[in-house]
Amino acid sequence: MTQPSSTPLSYEQAGVQYDLIDPLKVAAQRAAAATGAHLAAHGFAELEASRGESAYVVDVGPFHIASIVECLGTKTLVADEMQELTGKSFFAGMAQDTIAMAVNDLVTVGATPLVVQAYWAAGGSAWFADAVRAGELVRGWKQACDTCKVAWGGGETPALAGIVEAGRIDLAAACTGLVNPKERLSLGEKLGPGDAIVLLASSGIHANGLSLARKLAGRLPQGYLTEVAPGLGYGEALLAPTTLYSPVTEALWAAGVRVHYAANITGHGWRKLLRHPRRLSYRIHTVPPVPPVLRFIQQQAGHDDAEAYGTLNMGAGFALYVAAADAERAVDVAQACGVPAWVAGVVEDGDKALHIEPLGVRFGGEALRLR
Amino acid sequence: MTQPSSTPLSYEQAGVQYDLIDPLKVAAQRAAAATGAHLAAHGFAELEASRGESAYVVDVGPFHIASIVECLGTKTLVADEMQELTGKSFFAGMAQDTIAMAVNDLVTVGATPLVVQAYWAAGGSAWFADAVRAGELVRGWKQACDTCKVAWGGGETPALAGIVEAGRIDLAAACTGLVNPKERLSLGEKLGPGDAIVLLASSGIHANGLSLARKLAGRLPQGYLTEVAPGLGYGEALLAPTTLYSPVTEALWAAGVRVHYAANITGHGWRKLLRHPRRLSYRIHTVPPVPPVLRFIQQQAGHDDAEAYGTLNMGAGFALYVAAADAERAVDVAQACGVPAWVAGVVEDGDKALHIEPLGVRFGGEALRLR
Repeated sequence: MTQPSSTPLSYEQAGVQYDLIDPLKVAAQRAAAATGAHLAAHGFAELEASRGESAYVVDVGPFHIASIVECLGTKTLVADEMQELTGKSFFAGMAQDTIAMAVNDLVTVGATPLVVQAYWAAGGSAWFADAVRAGELVRGWKQACDTCKVAWGGGETPALAGIVEAGRIDLAAACTGLVNPKERLSLGEKLGPGDAIVLLASSGIHANGLSLARKLAGRLPQGYLTEVAPGLGYGEALLAPTTLYSPVTEALWAAGVRVHYAANITGHGWRKLLRHPRRLSYRIHTVPPVPPVLRFIQQQAGHDDAEAYGTLNMGAGFALYVAAADAERAVDVAQACGVPAWVAGVVEDGDKALHIEPLGVRFGGEALRLR
Repeated sequence: MTQPSSTPLSYEQAGVQYDLIDPLKVAAQRAAAATGAHLAAHGFAELEASRGESAYVVDVGPFHIASIVECLGTKTLVADEMQELTGKSFFAGMAQDTIAMAVNDLVTVGATPLVVQAYWAAGGSAWFADAVRAGELVRGWKQACDTCKVAWGGGETPALAGIVEAGRIDLAAACTGLVNPKERLSLGEKLGPGDAIVLLASSGIHANGLSLARKLAGRLPQGYLTEVAPGLGYGEALLAPTTLYSPVTEALWAAGVRVHYAANITGHGWRKLLRHPRRLSYRIHTVPPVPPVLRFIQQQAGHDDAEAYGTLNMGAGFALYVAAADAERAVDVAQACGVPAWVAGVVEDGDKALHIEPLGVRFGGEALRLR
């Protein structure tokens, strides 16, 4: 295995400067919040607690409607490079990744995803001329819809020469679903001390941390073909499609497990476990096994556990907060869906903080600012 | 005024090659259609007639849910160039344009738009560092939401260096709404001979035909600063924000005017009037005044009326098909909303065709293939 580089690589060095995006985000969030009142003109109301959560929720009477739009990010750049290296298209996986970005966020609020819309903005009409790649994108999109039992409603396939780079594609998905019945809502009202934290396995890096992962590839003599485990190349491992968690959340409801709160572990890694605004402490006693590709990135980037777990999912792609009595059953339901799961920790009274005890890592409440 | 160039410019020459996109579209439409059956697992069903229409509609019991994602396209490239030329940001208008793309499509099916999600994918974090431009984007987005009485639910502001070009932004909007009550549905079941066609004024080019418009700018000695009417520059005229039609469709319902069918006149220009699959003939007797910028483009591109009306909106941004007895009232309602409108034609029995009689232009059923 390649030796770790002596120069650590931070997320900012990898090219994402959050301080430039954040003032806009704050202004946008403020303006957006002021528009919620328009729903009264139609006889409806927003669930204010959903602002700052992963999907926006509106009470329309018999049930709630949840909606979202999510971008895949730069994972396609890895697929493009791997296609050049191997001649193989990875776009079925890109499709699943994109749908996962939207669906896995939507289900955190307790919604059943119903409709997905495709947003495929290419850097020119020529992108679509690679029939194998385009066919894989369609096939993977359909397959992910089948897995999540959502209807693919339609979408956009613009050719945006001059905006999207030639040969590239910007993939995103919009998703609409229902919280039905309304008691499925999991915005955290029921979250409290004594709840168990159940972690669901990730399939790898999913689609967050790819800027860092790509930067590291450039440092490796064999690049994406470097082995991260026997027979498993770095590029191929990075491209493992993101796990779709909606089959698990649907099965949990069917099995009578009530989810008090849920967090999709994406950007900011495990700091996302601190997502709910309430003052609560989260103590992790069991840490899932780390996928080889994530351990490799941690080593190559020279990250300690705090930086790694604060940036990447490190093997846990989704967190469920349930009553302690439901925890083992939640694990069983997830595993029956083919998703490894662990009763990993407990919610406690105390200052807002996440303690990952087996690693001696602590994140305070200031570690995650999403609102 | 600049003399028309002697070399005509077609849409294909302007860089959009539909034959490369279309095979993918067909494959995607087929795969998408096969996923509609998943809704049965949740106790719901799609309205199959909405496939091929401007928004996808699902019957969820008490009402229908409509959803959509729409891209602005390349209009931002004009705004970028005009900002360089004038120092002024046009991104409040870009925001309205983007929301209009989604909302104007959504309302064609009879839906009230409820929630808009923002998709702002920049070519790097640096895009957001221009605080004036970013502020205008936020302000315009909020204002368009206010006009349409929709809640801005949230969105994505990814920095996609390597996918979106440096200094550029890819703008899109997702919109979810309700057809409520269900009899507001306007997928065309009630469309038939004797109906009147009411056209609503456009504000200019809206956001379709911009590839052509940009190409023409390169041919003009003064480029975007060329006057298209006294005191009105080409670039500024192109950037007139797209009219938002949802206040009109909401007011029509409130006034008791039942819309049988509606078409958002975007790409393919007036050929969109042929959108409904039924075998019907559309006879236009009154043609709205042509905005100076569109007349200018027609002249500069050397287009005859058939090519111009088959590509651009030529002053009509939205078409309503209503009972003849409701036509004048529809016009009054639209004008009370500040949108000029005309009783422009009639629906007749006969082979599928659009006759624009004052211009001697005819489009047959083969002129528009969206399904």
